[in-house]
Amino acid sequence: MNILYTDDTICAIATAQGGAIGTIRVSGKEAITITDKIFTPVNGVSLSERKPYTLTFGHINGENSEIVDEVLVSLFHGPHSYTGEDSTEISCHGSSYILQQVMQLLIKNGCRAAGPGEFTQRAFLNGKMDLSQAEAVADLIASTSAASHRMAMNQMRGGFSRELSQLREKLLHLTSLMELELDFSDHEELEFADRSELSQIASQVEEVINGLVQSFSVGNAIKNGIPVAIIGETNAGKSTLLNTLLNEERAIVSDIHGTTRDVIEDTMNIKGILFRFIDTAGIRDTSDTIESIGIERSFQKLDQASIVLWVIDSTEAETQINALKDKIIPRCEGKKLILVMNKCDVTPGTETLPDKGTHFPDNNCVETISISAKRRNGITELQELLVKAAALPEVTQNDVVVSNVRHYEALSHALEAIHRVQDGMSIGLSGDLVSQDLRECLFHLAEIVGGEITNDEVLGNIFKNFCIGK
Amino acid sequence: MNILYTDDTICAIATAQGGAIGTIRVSGKEAITITDKIFTPVNGVSLSERKPYTLTFGHINGENSEIVDEVLVSLFHGPHSYTGEDSTEISCHGSSYILQQVMQLLIKNGCRAAGPGEFTQRAFLNGKMDLSQAEAVADLIASTSAASHRMAMNQMRGGFSRELSQLREKLLHLTSLMELELDFSDHEELEFADRSELSQIASQVEEVINGLVQSFSVGNAIKNGIPVAIIGETNAGKSTLLNTLLNEERAIVSDIHGTTRDVIEDTMNIKGILFRFIDTAGIRDTSDTIESIGIERSFQKLDQASIVLWVIDSTEAETQINALKDKIIPRCEGKKLILVMNKCDVTPGTETLPDKGTHFPDNNCVETISISAKRRNGITELQELLVKAAALPEVTQNDVVVSNVRHYEALSHALEAIHRVQDGMSIGLSGDLVSQDLRECLFHLAEIVGGEITNDEVLGNIFKNFCIGK
Repeated sequence: MNILYTDDTICAIATAQGGAIGTIRVSGKEAITITDKIFTPVNGVSLSERKPYTLTFGHINGENSEIVDEVLVSLFHGPHSYTGEDSTEISCHGSSYILQQVMQLLIKNGCRAAGPGEFTQRAFLNGKMDLSQAEAVADLIASTSAASHRMAMNQMRGGFSRELSQLREKLLHLTSLMELELDFSDHEELEFADRSELSQIASQVEEVINGLVQSFSVGNAIKNGIPVAIIGETNAGKSTLLNTLLNEERAIVSDIHGTTRDVIEDTMNIKGILFRFIDTAGIRDTSDTIESIGIERSFQKLDQASIVLWVIDSTEAETQINALKDKIIPRCEGKKLILVMNKCDVTPGTETLPDKGTHFPDNNCVETISISAKRRNGITELQELLVKAAALPEVTQNDVVVSNVRHYEALSHALEAIHRVQDGMSIGLSGDLVSQDLRECLFHLAEIVGGEITNDEVLGNIFKNFCIGK
Repeated sequence: MNILYTDDTICAIATAQGGAIGTIRVSGKEAITITDKIFTPVNGVSLSERKPYTLTFGHINGENSEIVDEVLVSLFHGPHSYTGEDSTEISCHGSSYILQQVMQLLIKNGCRAAGPGEFTQRAFLNGKMDLSQAEAVADLIASTSAASHRMAMNQMRGGFSRELSQLREKLLHLTSLMELELDFSDHEELEFADRSELSQIASQVEEVINGLVQSFSVGNAIKNGIPVAIIGETNAGKSTLLNTLLNEERAIVSDIHGTTRDVIEDTMNIKGILFRFIDTAGIRDTSDTIESIGIERSFQKLDQASIVLWVIDSTEAETQINALKDKIIPRCEGKKLILVMNKCDVTPGTETLPDKGTHFPDNNCVETISISAKRRNGITELQELLVKAAALPEVTQNDVVVSNVRHYEALSHALEAIHRVQDGMSIGLSGDLVSQDLRECLFHLAEIVGGEITNDEVLGNIFKNFCIGK
């Protein structure tokens, strides 16, 4: 039990404003008695007398014996509830006036308005789920694609936790062997034999942790979108292309060179894959200070992208490619580069795609496509190129993929610790020093699932980003 | 039963997008079996085997045995449900991706996506509520003030229907007496005695219907807001006053005369009373055609208002009052007129409120107040004046107040019919002719609660304005 845990009764509106139905959640040791105070069941049987997992129809009584609403109340007895506590859910007509009235009545009768994520936090503190599962609840609610939904669902249902618990067992086994070795540390010949078994286990552990750390690039791309930088000279049509890809007027478009100064980002789901498009300021020599800063940022964004769309005005293709290739090509190593020959409607039929062999002798990843962003010509083909370039592995609901930055950091620290363990073993460091690194590795893995080592600040940071009512 | 009634199984997302919890409603004779097809309960007991009014925890199964979500399913057996049919409610995590997936699975297994208000329409067609109660459901969801909530709640709980049913009984009694009279129509002396009793009943009916018709002005003001026209010369500060009253930048404000050309309306709840503020184009002689149309509309809006805020630039008060009083005063008969002396910050202390006796000798309803819209001086006092001018009677949950235009129209027709009945009696019209008007009166009252006389077009018009999922 943690000092963050309070056993008062909390309530919150758990549905968004504006629907036909609105739901208020109540949880805590007084949840049922407080709900009973404001609720008159039509069958005359109070909630305290009803069995759990039942629905009761009745009305909420306001001031002056006015009826606030006709409602259905769901009843849960702890520990068999989401939070692990006694809980009710009041299902009202979806009027924000009514929902506010019911909230006020609950608060007047002893409830406290819940903070963000407080129901899930209680579920964690009551042992209904570990921290990584709790975090998956927020990811699940925010999921917008099949892949991000699959990752969050696996994590919420404990797939990641099981993987970590197996790791933890291996590490504890390693630690106990290490301690055994310490007990026999006088016998040098014994130590040597043990060390070989120990390093075998250590490298198994390292392999699993490393795999999880590596999975983050996929997990992050699925969750936040694959970063696609749109780059090129001023007035090549980058903002028009962004608007066309997003199907909306996201960026301001004009014929004036250097219209886009800020970096504009937005995500779009193409064939189930989330892309994060980044429109950048056009690259040119300029004396405008603000525009220069924008161009500097364009290069930074290019560095962060996995896919680069280099937009080229096809009416002056050779000039533009020659002007920028020395700036762009070296920065595209390890990325997918797509040359987008824009404005093909202006020079129909006459456009010649640049010769890849001449310009990019060393780069096999370059693709070239001819489009008109303005007239939406070639956009479907460009989308197909993007999906191909994304090359995300298929994630199933059984795959453990790390998508949470906090988990990634903890795993990275655990990986460093296990590397120190391996290094220590190879140079024959004493068992107690190696044990220290093993304990650190265990500590970082424990951070992910939570537990006695989790402090209030960590919990506060995790749950503050939840929505109210969850 | 109506031809609009279909017994297929419908489903809809009943909560707004973006909350922690999302609910999907399923109703129809296959509701339980279809839900069972996509749902795996953790306790292994299928919904078909569960008792009504219970909650079952489990998960929704997607394609390839993937888990779409962990959910709670509420179970209802017809006729003891909202629609009167077998129903389920699936409570999911509030992700629109998940909700869409569950909807697709339901549709794939035989459900149809419900249209607006289709659940409530089924409730009506299954006799769970009459038409006026069904309409009150939409009003309840849209209610934003205590008074509009009270009206809708009374109506939904059948207060209005009871009143109408009493009226109907009286009318049927009257009709039967009329028919009795027809049987004895040979005996002239008998007829005379009956007629006096009949006209007594008729005037009782007339009184009740008239009261209901009269209540519409209050009901409409509560539901849609009391119309307050903001009128005055150009640049007197009307738009600034609107923005100040609404606490937002609703109207474009500038120093240029004639900035506001359109009529801008918005509502604001002041001390529980809903006001509908109408900003109008400033009145002045102008050659600008568009502005002239705006000025014409200003006068039309003035005619529709119950309260008129005449905004006057206090630095030139006498001039402005003399210029417009002949145009404005005659149009304010029966309305509350408030002279708002604006820009009191420009001439602090020197402002002299115009002498009411001189300018408005015949009007006792004129109030005067000195404010600065720009600096928010005197705004609280102006709001108090508005609340006082509104003079809405206190509506309790037991008062029957008509707030629906359709009901108002039906009642107005019923009132005309009962007037014809009274006229017919007074001139000694024959019983069968009077009966015809009585039947028409009954017909119009029946229109309100619905029934066998209600046609599909009427129902379609009523329910199309509901939200989906209700």
